[in-house]
Amino acid sequence: MTNYLIRGMVLPMTGAEDFYPDGEVAVHGDRIAAVGERGAVAGDFRPDRIIDLPQHVIMPGLINTHTHAAMTLLRGYADDLPLMPWLEKKVWPYEARMSAADIYWGSALALCEMLKSGTTTMVDMYMSQDETARAVLEAGTRALLARGAIVPDPETGRKAIEESTALYHKFHNQGNGRIKVLFGPHAPYTCTGEFLREVKQEADRLGTGMHIHLAETQTELATIRERYGTTPVRWLESLGFFGGHVIAAHGVHLDEEEIGLLAQYRVGVAHNPESNMKLSSGTAPIPRLLAAGVAVGLGTDGASSNNDLDMFGEMRSAAFQQKLVGSPEDLKAYTVLEMATAGGARVVGIPEIGKLVPGYKADLIAVNMNQPHFYPRFSILSHLVYCAGGRDVSTAMVDGRILMEDRCLLTLDEQRICREVEQRAKRIAAEVQ
Amino acid sequence: MTNYLIRGMVLPMTGAEDFYPDGEVAVHGDRIAAVGERGAVAGDFRPDRIIDLPQHVIMPGLINTHTHAAMTLLRGYADDLPLMPWLEKKVWPYEARMSAADIYWGSALALCEMLKSGTTTMVDMYMSQDETARAVLEAGTRALLARGAIVPDPETGRKAIEESTALYHKFHNQGNGRIKVLFGPHAPYTCTGEFLREVKQEADRLGTGMHIHLAETQTELATIRERYGTTPVRWLESLGFFGGHVIAAHGVHLDEEEIGLLAQYRVGVAHNPESNMKLSSGTAPIPRLLAAGVAVGLGTDGASSNNDLDMFGEMRSAAFQQKLVGSPEDLKAYTVLEMATAGGARVVGIPEIGKLVPGYKADLIAVNMNQPHFYPRFSILSHLVYCAGGRDVSTAMVDGRILMEDRCLLTLDEQRICREVEQRAKRIAAEVQ
Repeated sequence: MTNYLIRGMVLPMTGAEDFYPDGEVAVHGDRIAAVGERGAVAGDFRPDRIIDLPQHVIMPGLINTHTHAAMTLLRGYADDLPLMPWLEKKVWPYEARMSAADIYWGSALALCEMLKSGTTTMVDMYMSQDETARAVLEAGTRALLARGAIVPDPETGRKAIEESTALYHKFHNQGNGRIKVLFGPHAPYTCTGEFLREVKQEADRLGTGMHIHLAETQTELATIRERYGTTPVRWLESLGFFGGHVIAAHGVHLDEEEIGLLAQYRVGVAHNPESNMKLSSGTAPIPRLLAAGVAVGLGTDGASSNNDLDMFGEMRSAAFQQKLVGSPEDLKAYTVLEMATAGGARVVGIPEIGKLVPGYKADLIAVNMNQPHFYPRFSILSHLVYCAGGRDVSTAMVDGRILMEDRCLLTLDEQRICREVEQRAKRIAAEVQ
Repeated sequence: MTNYLIRGMVLPMTGAEDFYPDGEVAVHGDRIAAVGERGAVAGDFRPDRIIDLPQHVIMPGLINTHTHAAMTLLRGYADDLPLMPWLEKKVWPYEARMSAADIYWGSALALCEMLKSGTTTMVDMYMSQDETARAVLEAGTRALLARGAIVPDPETGRKAIEESTALYHKFHNQGNGRIKVLFGPHAPYTCTGEFLREVKQEADRLGTGMHIHLAETQTELATIRERYGTTPVRWLESLGFFGGHVIAAHGVHLDEEEIGLLAQYRVGVAHNPESNMKLSSGTAPIPRLLAAGVAVGLGTDGASSNNDLDMFGEMRSAAFQQKLVGSPEDLKAYTVLEMATAGGARVVGIPEIGKLVPGYKADLIAVNMNQPHFYPRFSILSHLVYCAGGRDVSTAMVDGRILMEDRCLLTLDEQRICREVEQRAKRIAAEVQ
């Protein structure tokens, strides 16, 4: 059990006015013991180590509520293409040739990048999640893992539920609770109604949640309309899919009644502005979702539709996108920061992360503000959203353990991971051709 | 006269296929002597220094075609406000209290940030441009400077032309030609028609160009419609404003005929996607401008409407914004890179920058690709647009002189500049209240 006393400008994300320009955070084991002005921590707290970062903002680690980590293997493999040729000619043939070991290395690369840009928790949906779980346990980060299930028939459905259940029993709450396992029905248009009903029952039986793509594109809306004569959210509601813990990725195309349903069933929305822009999906109605009381987090989506995993960039893009379609007052800096931290915690259903509060898990990052683009210092909130990039993060801690210091990763062999991914990605691409 | 041989992955921006994975660039004095595969440089070239950067992309320095450098003093001072209250209650009262010395330090901070994010040339419009010129000469960068002129009456117009002419005589072609002085009539809605005619004559007389805001907002369109019964571009054409070298910032609201006029008169457009999003100005018709043959560059606008000066972020946002309103095929990576380099060179009217070509000025940067977010390396073009940030730039050279190496600025006292700006900005803000 290590005790840390971390000093700097402390932004606890407990309210828009809460900020300690000369503050400190005490960490005892895996939890935050105290937060406040310098000197506020009780005199009987004996730090094993004092970390003095006077020019840094100490804030909660960022929560990436929707990604496909191992898709780093596809980064830059295919861009600037229309959706269907991109999927059919590029993404799917490539993914079909990925091995379990490839998934491990691709996930490890994503975790390197996430830590180096301030993300301490991710919600992941992909294949071979055992491999991703292994990488997360080694990295020391926090993750919610869902085996993505595309289910056109009962046989595929049985297999998906078996594998997801096995994943749950093997990894749920492993790593001092750092890993949670969810079910991952891919989307309303890629899974049968029968499977969506079954998976909800299984999730309820195990007492865990589900992660699903929802209302991402106009094509999805047209498909659901044609097949079931309704909209994606209403279709899921009619199946009894809601009621438990659900993380819905995207939520771009929603009418007022659907927003009401998401609020009523406490469905969390993972907003992915950069993916939505790059793939021309549209603009999610974030101000209306927030006004309705829906929990909204931010996500990067996979590296093939973004193409980085930098949540600071995502914050900036979230604000810009809403202001473009609305007014400059939409999605103010603090609201965006909240989506990336405390809002994300609501979406992932882990109440003890996303804020710096005594008793919460010690998941935090330090952002180096002693750089030209952070002067003058009128507003730390504005700077974090409109000027910061992931590369400004110098230190990252998860569960009370330092995983990065002075931008050096302490649990992951960054250079080896980069080399492995380079070789594997080139091998897969050669096989596709 | 120093000779450098710089080795790395060379991206000359002479065509989408032109790339030397193991290349070199020879620099003789202020110019590029040779570019090609390693070993391509003639045997009689004697480098004083070899700079070996095998994991870096060597590419042309970026050209920021529209900014207000000293507005770094306002960074984070006021955000998330509607346009008019933002200008009337925040920006203008603050600017009214800025001294010439403040402008110097604000400009110096902008130059620190620009070099640290790969920008080697800027087009600036602001007050007290003598001070900005001084900062540019010290920094060693390249700049086109225009005294911004808001002219409601003849008296103000006379003063603006006098001062601009004095600025021209004092600084045009100073610093081995690194500084160009333009005229800076602020916008069609802030200057009288008479002044716009006069300033065009003066620019012609001196043989220099003009920099103007044009068709930025719907409010501007409504104002011009009400006053003159036409649109901003047609209004300027009717005044005989076009024909010489004109850099038009924004160009958000343009119809097909106006795009044709811009092409016909060879007006360069400075596209500022992040400012246009943050201030809810709209989306400029970039694909249509490019299709019409209009020269389009990228700009950050000032730090109060962005809020950073990172041209890599601007490239990313340019692509995202167009894809959002169009299709994923719009504004492909190479096109965006071209806007930030060779396209920018066309806009600023300096044919010898923006590409790495023998005989061109040696304005170049090195981007460190040995980081997790740049793996695997399927496409350097994609990575530079969709994954790179300014902080990935390690080295910057302008006019054959190294201005930054390993992210250390060699001509600017970064820490002192940050401190000065902090004190001055806080002083000005206190005076406003």
